[in-house]
Amino acid sequence: MGTGPADIRARLRIPTGAPDTTLRQAVAFFRDQTPPVAAIGIACFGPIDLDPASPTFGFITTTPKPGWANTNVVKPFRDALGVPVAFDTDVNGAALGEHTWGAARGLDPFVYITVGTGIGGGGMVNGRLLHGLVHPEMGHLRIPHDRARDPFAGACPYHGDCLDGLASGRAMAMRWNAPAEELPPDHPAWELEAHYLALGVVGIIAVLSPRRVAIGGGVLQHMPLLPRVRRRVVDLLAGYVRAREILEDAERFIVPPTLGADAGVAGALALAQAALRRDRSGASAAE
Amino acid sequence: MGTGPADIRARLRIPTGAPDTTLRQAVAFFRDQTPPVAAIGIACFGPIDLDPASPTFGFITTTPKPGWANTNVVKPFRDALGVPVAFDTDVNGAALGEHTWGAARGLDPFVYITVGTGIGGGGMVNGRLLHGLVHPEMGHLRIPHDRARDPFAGACPYHGDCLDGLASGRAMAMRWNAPAEELPPDHPAWELEAHYLALGVVGIIAVLSPRRVAIGGGVLQHMPLLPRVRRRVVDLLAGYVRAREILEDAERFIVPPTLGADAGVAGALALAQAALRRDRSGASAAE
Repeated sequence: MGTGPADIRARLRIPTGAPDTTLRQAVAFFRDQTPPVAAIGIACFGPIDLDPASPTFGFITTTPKPGWANTNVVKPFRDALGVPVAFDTDVNGAALGEHTWGAARGLDPFVYITVGTGIGGGGMVNGRLLHGLVHPEMGHLRIPHDRARDPFAGACPYHGDCLDGLASGRAMAMRWNAPAEELPPDHPAWELEAHYLALGVVGIIAVLSPRRVAIGGGVLQHMPLLPRVRRRVVDLLAGYVRAREILEDAERFIVPPTLGADAGVAGALALAQAALRRDRSGASAAE
Repeated sequence: MGTGPADIRARLRIPTGAPDTTLRQAVAFFRDQTPPVAAIGIACFGPIDLDPASPTFGFITTTPKPGWANTNVVKPFRDALGVPVAFDTDVNGAALGEHTWGAARGLDPFVYITVGTGIGGGGMVNGRLLHGLVHPEMGHLRIPHDRARDPFAGACPYHGDCLDGLASGRAMAMRWNAPAEELPPDHPAWELEAHYLALGVVGIIAVLSPRRVAIGGGVLQHMPLLPRVRRRVVDLLAGYVRAREILEDAERFIVPPTLGADAGVAGALALAQAALRRDRSGASAAE
């Protein structure tokens, strides 16, 4: 795949401030590179507008992040740099990165889930990223809420007790009055967390039948949760989906991302490379 | 697309008996056609094995249907007819039929859901049918069970209160002690049914972001449920997925299948045509 995440030449981490300031700093970083950049790939938090025919293509649409709703992310880069700009969700980017260089090389359907402050998921199906009317919002899957064991109402401002509302880092902190990293390994929080994440994976299996699922993100850094998630997934399937790959080889079915925190950056790189190929073959860079 | 469902030349409906007898009758029907058939497409109830590399490729695997577990469906046709045989789930077949000639021509991601005795779903993504480790089992999506309103435990022999266990025709009959077709239009069964089906659609939206969802099957014949399902889907999304196509144009987002009861047959025809194209281009018919 040519240049990969091992060849990253320069890095800059910008604390998220107001959109104008933050985007200006990001544009300046790329404008100052020598030799000049040939294309830009943006793996962005969402929801975003991916429809090239839409008047708000390239925008972050609805987000509770202060100031960022209805922000045009693509235009500042395109205007300042005059190169092809590819745009997708952060989690689709990470899915593409792991599919290109990481935990699921050439393998699909493949789903990448991140469990941090919020929960998001992206996917590759039939050789391409999963886009649709908008893009997947796997964090907002409605799952059964075990109210007997967990009376917490849920933390999602839109849905209350969707997957994100029950299992995100934000939900854990609200439910237990302590951030995930402060909860000891024997705290009941972790078994409940594994149960909810397994319900999310089982929902994704029912709809997509992925060949592999990678789960990363900050919450997974504090506690080796994947063995528990694997066990709960097998329990919840209850023998109906009898794929040897899940039942006997769950360690290869539910995996950590190989690229770790670089999955998103790698995905942005792969997006930029694809934009460049499309541009050179004469197609629209906005596709 | 050449020959389509409007050109169906002969039909035979065989009551499902023992596998040997039923398959022998089906094979005989095709063997007796003049001119001889050029390819066979099978859209089969599942779960089935679609992996050409598997020793049980072409089999129905786990099914509660008496006698049909571990039945090789493909071999009798291949042995008797010596033509390419394509094999997929009944619901993937229907999804392909509707995508080729019906409610979602050329449109994807597209999902077809059938609500009959059981619930199943198939899909098209990035131009091809949705396959994975096995195939989608959308009927077995775990959804929130509204126990306050609905104390019924659920009818799925594997999962109890998954979508199939709460909303299939079998579940309705068990919950209300009467088959769906006998429940009057003002019976609370229908609002509950629309709620559960909407939860299924919302789960599919979260994972796949389809551009269109077709819902067919026997239960939908008794009662015009789709307007209620559309309203509940919009309610449940709660403004998070702000796609104009769903919020303002739900009549074109959630639709009945255009081909009706012929969707599966049309899908089998499209599968057979694809198998023939692959065979003529020299690739394996088993792909």
